[in-house]
Amino acid sequence: MEDRDSLANRRFKCTPRERACYEAGIKMGTIYHQFVGTPVSLSNVSDLEKSIAEAIKVQPYVENAVVKIDRSGFVKDGDRYSYMSLTGEMIDAVVTIYLDGVRLVSEMRYDAEMGYPLMFISDIEEK
Amino acid sequence: MEDRDSLANRRFKCTPRERACYEAGIKMGTIYHQFVGTPVSLSNVSDLEKSIAEAIKVQPYVENAVVKIDRSGFVKDGDRYSYMSLTGEMIDAVVTIYLDGVRLVSEMRYDAEMGYPLMFISDIEEK
Amino acid sequence: MEDRDSLANRRFKCTPRERACYEAGIKMGTIYHQFVGTPVSLSNVSDLEKSIAEAIKVQPYVENAVVKIDRSGFVKDGDRYSYMSLTGEMIDAVVTIYLDGVRLVSEMRYDAEMGYPLMFISDIEEK
Amino acid sequence: MEDRDSLANRRFKCTPRERACYEAGIKMGTIYHQFVGTPVSLSNVSDLEKSIAEAIKVQPYVENAVVKIDRSGFVKDGDRYSYMSLTGEMIDAVVTIYLDGVRLVSEMRYDAEMGYPLMFISDIEEK
Repeated sequence: MEDRDSLANRRFKCTPRERACYEAGIKMGTIYHQFVGTPVSLSNVSDLEKSIAEAIKVQPYVENAVVKIDRSGFVKDGDRYSYMSLTGEMIDAVVTIYLDGVRLVSEMRYDAEMGYPLMFISDIEEK
Repeated sequence: MEDRDSLANRRFKCTPRERACYEAGIKMGTIYHQFVGTPVSLSNVSDLEKSIAEAIKVQPYVENAVVKIDRSGFVKDGDRYSYMSLTGEMIDAVVTIYLDGVRLVSEMRYDAEMGYPLMFISDIEEK
Repeated sequence: MEDRDSLANRRFKCTPRERACYEAGIKMGTIYHQFVGTPVSLSNVSDLEKSIAEAIKVQPYVENAVVKIDRSGFVKDGDRYSYMSLTGEMIDAVVTIYLDGVRLVSEMRYDAEMGYPLMFISDIEEK
Repeated sequence: MEDRDSLANRRFKCTPRERACYEAGIKMGTIYHQFVGTPVSLSNVSDLEKSIAEAIKVQPYVENAVVKIDRSGFVKDGDRYSYMSLTGEMIDAVVTIYLDGVRLVSEMRYDAEMGYPLMFISDIEEK
């Protein structure tokens, strides 16, 4: 029986380098759209950062993932309504994809000049 | 200035006991609809259980939250496509709400007789 | 064979009135945590309002659901980055639950006094 | 002032063709992780298909999006628990990206041979 890597490869009409770009995009979309809205405060922010990274590492072709959440909006001695809902603007993520000799770094963070939480490719290396 | 507990109380046209039921429902909806779809495998399942519970504890009136994820569908030595997406059927959650002298326990788990991941109230105590 | 309504009823340790409160809470948690993060602009906002309402009406015991999304942040002739991600603060929802002779109205909207997107019960009637 | 397209372009360390692959991946991750878990039945399935497509069209560089949801699991005359939660396996999506002279088609659907809801690139054309 053909393994699933070979089956998947046959569906893709592009180079490994292009597929690495695509896989990186999927991971960025996952981080944003799975976790935006999650209740977060100083009590669980470290835990949530780790948990998002660990979930992304489960997806195919992820070599590494580091997620940081902006703490500047958190209130220290607030009331029970002082927590936040995670927004895209609070997320800083760096994901490394490795696929067929291609290592790609993708980043997501709020871009102050654009006023937009930009996802982008910051590096591609081919061995 | 009026505190936010008092402001919120004035919006509710019901008893504390009824509000405890409502708050419990919100938390159950949050667990399900925020986290269903998350990539999960043996490598991050314990982490995800803890993370869901910690996120729910951030919400108002949650005294405790315990989340267990069914591991029976996980593959031990699979390929890169062997992870799962979290489904409602895999979630077992017990959330305790405490509000104004009312302590309420709500549970969510797959009910085999119903063939449905049921959310329900298993206990209400009033002091 | 026992029907699923009876099976569900047996799991609940509370009155129909309390259960109506709980069911309303679930729906509010669903609206918030399923849809926060959705890309939205003037081009799809009416469509998204209707779609959220229709999805909620699929859940048990929902008699009616009306969802409005705040348009004040939308840009009319923007660039390709001018769309928004749906936030809880933008949502105004009114959900009517009917269960066993109890009709309950629950609302969610940004409460300017609290600075918080409050979910609350605005009416319960028992026949 | 520099426009946002130029600002974004400067962050990307890759070709337009590679960026088109990346943008396609983001959209696929969005479809899956934003909408998996949504309550769906025969009553709202057409509406939900349209709504997912319209939300994706709001994102940058999407020329077209068509979403179909598998209806084979729906029950026609069921009870109030007979609706489903949208899963990745039920989604069939075709998204066309157009960016800087590159037109790319990406698809997502359950791949029976792989037993996996595969996202892939089916075509790239450069003018």
